[in-house]
Amino acid sequence: MKPADIKKVKITDSFWGRLQELVRSEMIPYQWKALNDEIDSAAKSYCIHNFRAAARLNEKRRELGEDFKQAKFSDPGFEVWPCDGEQPQPDKFYGFLFQDTDLYKWIEAAAYSLATRPDPGLEATVDEAVKLIASAQHPCGYLDTYYLLCGMDAAFTNLQSNHELYCLGHLIEAACAYYEAAGKDGLLTVARRYADYVYERMGPEGDIPGYPGHEIAEMALARLYNVTGEKKYLELAKLFIDRRGQSPNYFDEERRAEARRLGRQYRQSPDLNRYAYHQAHMPVREQKEAVGHAVRAVYLYSGMADVGALTDDETLKKACVELWRSITREKMYITGGIGGTCVGEAFSYPFDLPNDSAYAETCAAVGLVFFARRMLEISPCGEYADVMEQALYNCVLSGMSQDGKSFFYVNPLETVPEACRKDSRLGHVKSRRQKWFGCACCPPNLARLIESVASYAITEDKNTVWLNLFMGCEFTKEVDGVSLKLSVETDMPFDGGVKLKITAPSAAYASFAIRIPHWTDKDLIEISLPDGKIQKEKDGYLYISGIWEGEEEIRLSLPMPVRIMTADKRVRECLGKAAVMRGPLVYCAEGEELALYRLNTEKKISPEQGEICGNPITLLNAGFKKLSSNSAGLYTEYRKPEETEENLRLIPYFAWNNSGEKEMRVWFRV
Amino acid sequence: MKPADIKKVKITDSFWGRLQELVRSEMIPYQWKALNDEIDSAAKSYCIHNFRAAARLNEKRRELGEDFKQAKFSDPGFEVWPCDGEQPQPDKFYGFLFQDTDLYKWIEAAAYSLATRPDPGLEATVDEAVKLIASAQHPCGYLDTYYLLCGMDAAFTNLQSNHELYCLGHLIEAACAYYEAAGKDGLLTVARRYADYVYERMGPEGDIPGYPGHEIAEMALARLYNVTGEKKYLELAKLFIDRRGQSPNYFDEERRAEARRLGRQYRQSPDLNRYAYHQAHMPVREQKEAVGHAVRAVYLYSGMADVGALTDDETLKKACVELWRSITREKMYITGGIGGTCVGEAFSYPFDLPNDSAYAETCAAVGLVFFARRMLEISPCGEYADVMEQALYNCVLSGMSQDGKSFFYVNPLETVPEACRKDSRLGHVKSRRQKWFGCACCPPNLARLIESVASYAITEDKNTVWLNLFMGCEFTKEVDGVSLKLSVETDMPFDGGVKLKITAPSAAYASFAIRIPHWTDKDLIEISLPDGKIQKEKDGYLYISGIWEGEEEIRLSLPMPVRIMTADKRVRECLGKAAVMRGPLVYCAEGEELALYRLNTEKKISPEQGEICGNPITLLNAGFKKLSSNSAGLYTEYRKPEETEENLRLIPYFAWNNSGEKEMRVWFRV
Repeated sequence: MKPADIKKVKITDSFWGRLQELVRSEMIPYQWKALNDEIDSAAKSYCIHNFRAAARLNEKRRELGEDFKQAKFSDPGFEVWPCDGEQPQPDKFYGFLFQDTDLYKWIEAAAYSLATRPDPGLEATVDEAVKLIASAQHPCGYLDTYYLLCGMDAAFTNLQSNHELYCLGHLIEAACAYYEAAGKDGLLTVARRYADYVYERMGPEGDIPGYPGHEIAEMALARLYNVTGEKKYLELAKLFIDRRGQSPNYFDEERRAEARRLGRQYRQSPDLNRYAYHQAHMPVREQKEAVGHAVRAVYLYSGMADVGALTDDETLKKACVELWRSITREKMYITGGIGGTCVGEAFSYPFDLPNDSAYAETCAAVGLVFFARRMLEISPCGEYADVMEQALYNCVLSGMSQDGKSFFYVNPLETVPEACRKDSRLGHVKSRRQKWFGCACCPPNLARLIESVASYAITEDKNTVWLNLFMGCEFTKEVDGVSLKLSVETDMPFDGGVKLKITAPSAAYASFAIRIPHWTDKDLIEISLPDGKIQKEKDGYLYISGIWEGEEEIRLSLPMPVRIMTADKRVRECLGKAAVMRGPLVYCAEGEELALYRLNTEKKISPEQGEICGNPITLLNAGFKKLSSNSAGLYTEYRKPEETEENLRLIPYFAWNNSGEKEMRVWFRV
Repeated sequence: MKPADIKKVKITDSFWGRLQELVRSEMIPYQWKALNDEIDSAAKSYCIHNFRAAARLNEKRRELGEDFKQAKFSDPGFEVWPCDGEQPQPDKFYGFLFQDTDLYKWIEAAAYSLATRPDPGLEATVDEAVKLIASAQHPCGYLDTYYLLCGMDAAFTNLQSNHELYCLGHLIEAACAYYEAAGKDGLLTVARRYADYVYERMGPEGDIPGYPGHEIAEMALARLYNVTGEKKYLELAKLFIDRRGQSPNYFDEERRAEARRLGRQYRQSPDLNRYAYHQAHMPVREQKEAVGHAVRAVYLYSGMADVGALTDDETLKKACVELWRSITREKMYITGGIGGTCVGEAFSYPFDLPNDSAYAETCAAVGLVFFARRMLEISPCGEYADVMEQALYNCVLSGMSQDGKSFFYVNPLETVPEACRKDSRLGHVKSRRQKWFGCACCPPNLARLIESVASYAITEDKNTVWLNLFMGCEFTKEVDGVSLKLSVETDMPFDGGVKLKITAPSAAYASFAIRIPHWTDKDLIEISLPDGKIQKEKDGYLYISGIWEGEEEIRLSLPMPVRIMTADKRVRECLGKAAVMRGPLVYCAEGEELALYRLNTEKKISPEQGEICGNPITLLNAGFKKLSSNSAGLYTEYRKPEETEENLRLIPYFAWNNSGEKEMRVWFRV
């Protein structure tokens, strides 16, 4: 199974079409300006600034030749910003040390957009950016503006923390995307040169037996192998995975070498879980629990799944299944958010899923979508697509406002604005979206996922097309030399009707695997099939097979009942509470004093047409009992509580905080 | 009103007598060993080490005279410990920069013990300690081993953070206590010399218009004035209070001067709440909300109440009332614990009182007891004694184990051992008591409060004796030349019976004010009085007045019903929950899976005799409904919960964690 080629899929869906248009018309131009520091009211990026500074260094290098001497590396820290009132210096690095990736992610998003909707202006801007990146690359192939500007002598000395391989990964992703979209190999050449250099240094014959401190290079190198057919990229990806967490730990070796350089004594921490943050606490094949920084984790697991599939490595695939289970059975919010603790932006221990102090980073949910699709590729089970859908429609989309202009980094399931302002333990939680972040990983990650969503919705092999996510689209599928024209019509995520039209110029055998979502009532699904087709259910998919000719139509009506959900008893934060879902959407309330509301589970919850910011949306009208807020004192004798019946209109979680700053809550006492 | 002189009160109470005996026989000897670093299994203190090192410096000073040159101050940081495997150097400072106070608090506790129970061995040890302290004092009177050892040139340059006046405060408290207990003025002389030096530098003519970053000197100086009659100590206390939070802020000035010294630019933080941690964000008379570090706050408020009473300053008294209300109406746990957040060990915003991540430091509850008694001294209202009792019997006593050998710094209202181990956001919460702490402020604070508890239980003026807390004791009261012998018998906190026997050798007029606790049912109190006495209720006290002669007896029976308590609706963490109290005691459950238990408020909760670690205790047998822990998955459709009826034996909160490490919980879902 492979993801659909997004060039061949035209999204016609009103829901996703609008989002893609937002990305094209708002986010991509806005983010380009942000990368260029042209937005006064937002935090400065310095991303383009850094590439320009590195390019100037190359000019100098060329001019001076052997006379070129760069100052030795003097560690400026993890993030560098000009002091208040200080003008940024043209030859200095600013931002987080992985600032380069913001440009790469932007190019990747732009590439996906260009793949389906040509835009010569945007393509010219991308070409300009590619030129800039190429001009910043070191003659040896190395490319990370942090070390290029701060001192190349220290390059690759701190793989654990300093993100050079993370930059490589995002560069490769952007390069592959742009090559596939526009057929231009300028950036691909840059990426290959950097990858070749890394192979030289870290490959089987290299001098650095390291691996990334922040994963992504693994899946990126697998992709580079797929695009170029060059085996050494897959080999390097596999090396990164195989070395990870082996003893002696490479990150220990790095710290030891650093201590030697600085003439200090090195003391190894006795903590057996050291490097769990980086998923490097044990060999990956022995890891059964998802731990550490959540984004890093799912990026690694995605890479493991890629390499597992490409090398047909059963031990890797098995580890992926274990880790998938750990996440989805014990460590995932109902919104598909992951990362229960802000400490290390990380997975907490099993079932520790606090609602108000959740981390649930947008990027981590994006990464979970990556991981889910790769698990689908290994084994087409509905469970993977269910989680993919849950993460996508809830935690991922909550990451951006309805107008595409502001973003959440952290996606809590309960907020009280006063608490966010006054409680420093909630310092990471914002009760309204921000325009841009100094560490702007999430907005461009959203953009690249939304623009490539078709490759998650639809996957295929020789004769089969899987509809994993439901969205209106048109695409073609070649089977046995026949080009089938397919079109999907649906009003998901608000209505369960799905129509798949197949137009076959001549007879061809094909299967269409339509996912039966976990949220529907399987026994009540209505299916209408053309004559002579075989229908078979397997692993959460309905396979409809047969010979197709002329115009044929499959119709499904998936019941989409309102569901009151409860959490495993070990999720202490949700004990005695319930959440409301309909279809893939988690619903929430916005308002005041929400803690006083108790969901009346006896009362029918009814869907209602509504809109948020002009976008049609299905709301839910739910009955609650509201506790009187009267209090005779801080602690008083208990009396049976006085409650009044009240209704609240619940909105989809992804659409919260689009009409001012209010309290928000997903889980209600019952 | 003044606190009773503890020398005149003999505690005969089984509950408090046992605790005082524990302090004498266990804590005082144990802590002396700890201060001397003689306990292998506990964190090292270095407290005595530091005084010895400073004393050696004085010897050198005497030997070398004008040739004595000390190295310039080089900031070693807030805490200094030898590296692993490194031997402590005899001339170096170790520990927290306020390490001296541990010895002072130990002496204070020992003094209170000696006041009622002579012990020549202990007295000799105290005298030895006093000699050591005196030998460490700088010829000028200055006394803080941190700066004495690290560089006197920097003394008083960082009052905000570096605790020299905190050390002064504890030194004075110890000196007054030992002078009152043993009549020896050796330590008092040391304390006066340091206070005189501080007066010289910070008094009205001094060069440093500062005030303490960590308060306590205010109340200590008021006490020193009471003991010595020397007005300048009261004047200095008042100056510290009056200067606090005035603009320009002295702490800003300090930082500015530091920047000047280091040749750096100083930038004032634009945060209007800066210095709220130190209660120095605005003048104290304008402060209406209790904020910042909770221990600092209640120490300051205690000092304000002392100075307000001694100078009859209505504006100060009024500020104390406002701050008292802020704490007790909005920011106090039901256990009398204060400090809702670990960030700054501080008060959080109103009604933010999380149970599992509570700070509720033992020392802060001790400080609240200090503040409460001072509020009583200003105005004898039962409310103050109610809170004093609530804090004392719950949060304060929770601070130590039944065997007096281990201690809690933080007193949560809900713990799950797994969470404490695995959730770094709960790093401050321990699920079992510790033997000693590097920062050992709490154990000696407990010791000094327990040994002086009589001065909180009983206060007096010319003709009136107030019984604020109920405990068995014998004491004498001089009225109009007649020496009344008084004795109290009671089984508090487990039974509401109180008997006060008055023996008057000749007729004398006196009033006995017996507190009517908030937890009793006022209408059901049974009172038996001798003939001819007048009984009048005022502000939560029952005043029984008349002429006493021969042996007379007042008997009260205060009903002590089990009370199910609820919190103000704005305490989000307690919504839909209830706690159980009986008398002044908050009860809790210990066990497994406590989150699954719902308190059955319909079922009678019955007291039962029991014991914990051999100590008799009243337990409560309460009915619960326990949720089945079966879970079909992480998120499943809600069904009416399956519950089974179960009983749990609740124990007094102060006695939790005396039988192994289990879950503990005060607030239950109802």
